[in-house]
Amino acid sequence: MAQKPSIPKGTRDFNAVEVAKRSYIMNIIKERFELYGFQPIETPSFENSDTLMGKYGDEGDRLIFKILNSGDYLKKVSDEDYTSKDETRITSKISEKALRYDLTVPFARYVVQHQNEIEFPFKRYQIQPVWRADRPQKGRFREFYQCDADVVGSTSLFQEVEFVQLYDAVFTALDLKGVTIKINNRKILSGIAEVIGAQDKLIDFTVALDKLDKIGEEKVKEEMRSKGISEDGISKLQPLFSLEGDFGTQVESLKSILNTSEVGLKGIEELEFIDASISKLGLKTANLQLDVTLARGLNYYTGAIFEVAAPEGVKMGSIGGGGRYDDLTSIFGKPDTSGVGISFGLDRIYLVLEELNLFPETITDATKVLFINFGEKEAMACLQAVTNLRQHGVKAELYPDSAKMKKQMTHANRRNIPYVVLVGEEELNSGTYTLKNMKTGEQEKLNIQELLSTLK
Amino acid sequence: MAQKPSIPKGTRDFNAVEVAKRSYIMNIIKERFELYGFQPIETPSFENSDTLMGKYGDEGDRLIFKILNSGDYLKKVSDEDYTSKDETRITSKISEKALRYDLTVPFARYVVQHQNEIEFPFKRYQIQPVWRADRPQKGRFREFYQCDADVVGSTSLFQEVEFVQLYDAVFTALDLKGVTIKINNRKILSGIAEVIGAQDKLIDFTVALDKLDKIGEEKVKEEMRSKGISEDGISKLQPLFSLEGDFGTQVESLKSILNTSEVGLKGIEELEFIDASISKLGLKTANLQLDVTLARGLNYYTGAIFEVAAPEGVKMGSIGGGGRYDDLTSIFGKPDTSGVGISFGLDRIYLVLEELNLFPETITDATKVLFINFGEKEAMACLQAVTNLRQHGVKAELYPDSAKMKKQMTHANRRNIPYVVLVGEEELNSGTYTLKNMKTGEQEKLNIQELLSTLK
Repeated sequence: MAQKPSIPKGTRDFNAVEVAKRSYIMNIIKERFELYGFQPIETPSFENSDTLMGKYGDEGDRLIFKILNSGDYLKKVSDEDYTSKDETRITSKISEKALRYDLTVPFARYVVQHQNEIEFPFKRYQIQPVWRADRPQKGRFREFYQCDADVVGSTSLFQEVEFVQLYDAVFTALDLKGVTIKINNRKILSGIAEVIGAQDKLIDFTVALDKLDKIGEEKVKEEMRSKGISEDGISKLQPLFSLEGDFGTQVESLKSILNTSEVGLKGIEELEFIDASISKLGLKTANLQLDVTLARGLNYYTGAIFEVAAPEGVKMGSIGGGGRYDDLTSIFGKPDTSGVGISFGLDRIYLVLEELNLFPETITDATKVLFINFGEKEAMACLQAVTNLRQHGVKAELYPDSAKMKKQMTHANRRNIPYVVLVGEEELNSGTYTLKNMKTGEQEKLNIQELLSTLK
Repeated sequence: MAQKPSIPKGTRDFNAVEVAKRSYIMNIIKERFELYGFQPIETPSFENSDTLMGKYGDEGDRLIFKILNSGDYLKKVSDEDYTSKDETRITSKISEKALRYDLTVPFARYVVQHQNEIEFPFKRYQIQPVWRADRPQKGRFREFYQCDADVVGSTSLFQEVEFVQLYDAVFTALDLKGVTIKINNRKILSGIAEVIGAQDKLIDFTVALDKLDKIGEEKVKEEMRSKGISEDGISKLQPLFSLEGDFGTQVESLKSILNTSEVGLKGIEELEFIDASISKLGLKTANLQLDVTLARGLNYYTGAIFEVAAPEGVKMGSIGGGGRYDDLTSIFGKPDTSGVGISFGLDRIYLVLEELNLFPETITDATKVLFINFGEKEAMACLQAVTNLRQHGVKAELYPDSAKMKKQMTHANRRNIPYVVLVGEEELNSGTYTLKNMKTGEQEKLNIQELLSTLK
C-alpha cells in the first residue's frame, strides 16, 4: 500500500526559493569569514559517542541523537544489563556513534587530532548542520545549520576586536542595519560575584539581573534575596541598577563596584581595550553595547562574551553569539589552548531578513528563457539555440514535450520565467526566433546573435 | 582522563584545501545544473524509517543507519519481543528515523508530498551527503556526497539528450577531457532476453556479457551456459560478441538480433534518437558510446541507462551514472510519473582531478597578506590598514600577537601567504607600509593607496 509521505517532526524540506535565500546568507557569511582569514573545515556528521557525551551537561546528553549499531547490536549487551531493561545501561552498548550536536566540540576534537598538521594560531570556519532531539517549536528545529568562526592558539584581544568587525561586516553586507552587538566579560561577572560574596551564586545573580528591563529593580532585588544573596551584597550592586550612558560611563560605574576585585578589573580592562579599538576602527552599521547581564554559556566562556540582537522593532532572540574560552581542547588532551569564536544564527537571520523584506529579488532568479516546443523538428532547432545560449551563460530551457501552447505558456508563468521563445514553421524557414517578454507581452523577431545579446 | 580523539571509521575530516577542492567541483556542477534549468531542493538528513526501509532491497535495509528513539525507547518494545532478543523484531520499535541512504527516494517522497506546490515537469537538483553502513574501503565511505539532477513529469527523450550535454558541459568545465558517456537502454536488454528466451535471466546474461573485455568470448559463453542460457540463445547473441565500429554500425548489429522484439526495437529507436540529436548538437570534450553491457540498477531503470567513465589511462570506476525510471513515485502514492536523472560521483571525480593535476592552483588561494605584529601601537595601525584592505575585498590578516619576527614570518610561509607587511616605528611615523613579497624577498615602501592597488 502506498504510504502517505511525511518527514520527521522538527525537520524541513527546502524548496528552490528557500535554498536560494539560505545560500545567499551563507555565502555572505562565508565570504566575510574568508576575507578575515578564516579557513573552512568540515567534520563528519556523526562522531564517536564518547567524543560528544558528557560535553553538554545531562540535558545535552539526552538531546544528542544516537545511532544504532549495525548488525547484531544486542550481542554487546550483557544478560544482566539486558534484564535490567534500563536505557542508561543499555544505550552505550547498542549505540557507539552520535549525530553532531554543535560545531564546537567536533572542532576541539579536530584541533587535537590534527594538531601536528595545523599551523597556529588557527582560524577556522565551519558551516554545517547539527542535530538536537529538542522539542520542536516555532524557530526551533531538530536539524539546523550552525555558522561558526573560531581562532585557537592566541590570547590576543585583537581577535575579539576583529570578531566585532566581522559581525558588523556580515550584517552590513546583508543590508541588516542597526544590529546591536552586546558584549560582556566573564571576568566582570566573576568580579561582581566576588565583591558581593556570592561566588557560588553567579548564575542566580545573572539570571535575576537579566530581568531588570522586564520586571524592574525591586522585583530583581526580591529574586536575589530569595536566592540567598545578602542585603549587603545587593546594596553593593546598586550602581548596576542604574547603568546608563555610553560605554565609557557604564564602565566607570562598574569600576566603582569592582575596585576591590582583581579579576573584575581585568575584565574591565579587556572591555575597554575592545571598545577603544572599535572606536578607532569604526563600525559600518552595527552598534557595540555593554551588557552586564549577558552570561550565555557561563561555564564555558572565560573572557569576552558576545551576543547580537536584531535591529530594534524586530522581535527575535539573539541572531549570533560567542566568546572566549580558555580551555576547550583539554578534554581531548591538549591543555592551555585559548580560543575565541562567534556564531551566526542562520534560521533567525533568515526570518529577520524575510520580515524586513531584505532579500534581493535577483537571488531567486532562475531560468531566463523557455523555448516553446511545437514538435520534434522545431524542438531540435530550439535545442540548438538553447545549447548556444547556455554556452554563453544564459539559463535557458526547452519545454520537453510538444504540449498545447497554453500549457507551455502557463508553465513559464508559474515558474516566473521572464521570456519565452517561439519557433514555428516560419521561424524555422527564416532562421529566426520570436522572443516574447512575458511581463509586457511584447514580441520581436530576432536572429540568433540578437537573441543572444538581448538575453545575456 | 583525556580521550585520544578519533572519528568513526568510514568518515572523514576535511581540511581547508580539501574543502576548497570539493567546493570547486560542487560549484561547477551546481552552476551547470542551474544553467540547464534545474532548481535546488534540500531534504532532511533523516527520514521516517518507513520512507526508506524496503526501498533498497534487503542489503540496503541492512546498510541504512538507524537513529535510536529518544527517551525511554524500550517502552515501546513488548515483553514478548524483548524476551526474544531478536533485532529484526526490536529495531523498528526502538528506532523510527534513519539517515538518508541516497537522494532518489527522498526526492520521490518530496515530489509526492509537495505535488500540489510543484510545477511539472519538475527539474530539481540536490547536492547533499548520504550515509551507508558499508564496509569502508579505498574510495568507499560511510558518509559521502551525492550530486543528482532529475526531471519528473515528462517522457520526452530530449531530456536524455540534455543530460548527455550536461555531463559534457560539467566535465568540460572541470577541464577533464575525454570522458566516455556510455549509454544503453533497458528495453534493449529486455529485447535480447526475449529473443534468446531468457527473460528470467536478464541479470545473469548482462553480468556475463559485461566480462567480455576481461575474460574473452569463450569464457563468457561458458558462463552463460552455466547459468542455463540455451545453446540456441547463445548463438543468437553472436553479433554481440563482435560489436564494433561507431554508434550506427553497432546499432545495425543490434537490430539484426532484435528484429523480432518490439520492445527491443523501441529501445534501439530511443538510442538512435539520442545519438542523432547529440551528433547534431555536438559535444565539447566527451564521447558518447553505446555499451550493451551497461545494466546498473537494472530493476530500477526502464529506459535509457547512463554511466560515465574517466578518460582512458585513469583507473577508476564510473564517475557518474543515471537513467530513466518510469515509476519512482508510485511507492508513495503517485503513479505514472516518469523520471530521468543523472548523478555525479564527487569523491571519484576528486581523485581523478587530483591524479591528472587538474585543480587550478588559485582555488586554494586564501589570505593574501599578513601584517606582522610589532606591538600594540603598531598592531593598531596595522589593523586600520587591514580593515581598509578587507573593505576592498583583499583577504588580509594581522598576526594577533607581537611574537618574534621569525615566528611570524614562518607562520606566513607555512600558510603560503604571498605577502607580509611590516609596520615598525619608522613606518608608523611616516604613515607607510613595507610590503615584502615572500617569494622573491623583494621589499618596497608604500603608502596606503599604493598598498591597496598592489594587493587588489
